[in-house]
Amino acid sequence: MPTAAVVIIGNEILSGRTRDKNLPFLGSRLAELGIQLQETRVIPDLEKSIIATIREFTERFDYIFTTGGIGPTHDDITTASIAAAFETAVERNPEAVKILEEYYDAGSLNDARLKMANIPAGAKLIYNPVSAAPGFQIHNVFVLPGVPLIMQAMFEGIIDRLTGGEPILVKSITTNLRESTIAEGLGDIQERFNNVSIGSYPFFRRGRLGVNVVLRSTNGNMLQQATEQVAILITKLGGRHYNASDE
Amino acid sequence: MPTAAVVIIGNEILSGRTRDKNLPFLGSRLAELGIQLQETRVIPDLEKSIIATIREFTERFDYIFTTGGIGPTHDDITTASIAAAFETAVERNPEAVKILEEYYDAGSLNDARLKMANIPAGAKLIYNPVSAAPGFQIHNVFVLPGVPLIMQAMFEGIIDRLTGGEPILVKSITTNLRESTIAEGLGDIQERFNNVSIGSYPFFRRGRLGVNVVLRSTNGNMLQQATEQVAILITKLGGRHYNASDE
Repeated sequence: MPTAAVVIIGNEILSGRTRDKNLPFLGSRLAELGIQLQETRVIPDLEKSIIATIREFTERFDYIFTTGGIGPTHDDITTASIAAAFETAVERNPEAVKILEEYYDAGSLNDARLKMANIPAGAKLIYNPVSAAPGFQIHNVFVLPGVPLIMQAMFEGIIDRLTGGEPILVKSITTNLRESTIAEGLGDIQERFNNVSIGSYPFFRRGRLGVNVVLRSTNGNMLQQATEQVAILITKLGGRHYNASDE
Repeated sequence: MPTAAVVIIGNEILSGRTRDKNLPFLGSRLAELGIQLQETRVIPDLEKSIIATIREFTERFDYIFTTGGIGPTHDDITTASIAAAFETAVERNPEAVKILEEYYDAGSLNDARLKMANIPAGAKLIYNPVSAAPGFQIHNVFVLPGVPLIMQAMFEGIIDRLTGGEPILVKSITTNLRESTIAEGLGDIQERFNNVSIGSYPFFRRGRLGVNVVLRSTNGNMLQQATEQVAILITKLGGRHYNASDE
């Protein structure tokens, strides 16, 4: 199964002021495309952090997606840093200039806006249907903006550049039992179904603990059987189960 | 200023099914305590990933906080993996056993529950005021659960183990202007105030782009002056500014 990593570039995410919405989107969309997201890093707007992360990830994963830091302001250093990671020059991209010329009113294409046409040499543009300024792909790194709605629209434009594997099927069961009550039986079911991955995720809502059990497999028949076993286990232990859904 | 990193351990965050709430909390609380969160990684429930990340981070940062994977089920492997990272044995911790004995009804302390009293040798417990099962501190690594409300309650119990630096003051201004309109002027202000860090964060709401400008400094006077300059810039460029708040 092809692998991926996400790099979220932004001091504002690390400061806790801005809540990231890009990881949940990319995680779900990649899973749907049969690509396994194996790691995500949130790093500051700092050249050496970006360079080190990109150099490590381009070797380790099939696809890397970055978000943030490609705008027109002084703190937007992603493009230059990624070019540096690949020891490539940044150049004014003629196609990107044309896109910006068409988007902005005559005479309003100032230096800051033109900065968004600076793209590493040899990179392929990623089109932006919302606000024109493009992202780019260099080797296996896809460079996207941080604004979620714009990032999402641009991601949908590059899925034909990605090759996924066999889709992973998912089922989930929620119960009012506590994790420590179902732990032993769940471990037994996991041992019997070694091609199903069973995860147990406790939650705390309205003063009560409960568990979401999530089952994943590429084998629909085994997945169904394991899910039924979990439901039987919960009932046997005196619990309720609900929201069991195909996803 | 002391530094920190967060390690979010969980396949469910990477799959996009569960949205992480722990990074926004830890990022804000650490900033308030004068500790700079420099990196966050989201990694799978996989021993080799946990070991590699902990070994790298314990050298690079003053404080490391992990969330997730310390419950009673078969997929909770954080405790054993962190012990392995420090080449330490996991042992049944007598104090943790006592806490669990007091919390659970007589006779209901099963093997799965007792697993939560398995703690790396030499680690210091982190108390859990919500659901008893403790976390632990080993060297500079603080091991916390993934459930946000429980993690938050446990974090508040360890802040006397952390030493912060000078608090960073923050001001922000939101404007209806586009980033590319204010970019040049903002860059000039950043150059004049080198002890203020100015970040520019575009947003897209109700079909319109705007910008949050966030200013940070340990120097309140410089911060105030730079913020006033940003407000003057926005007005001069024909924009509105609002929500300028001390934070």
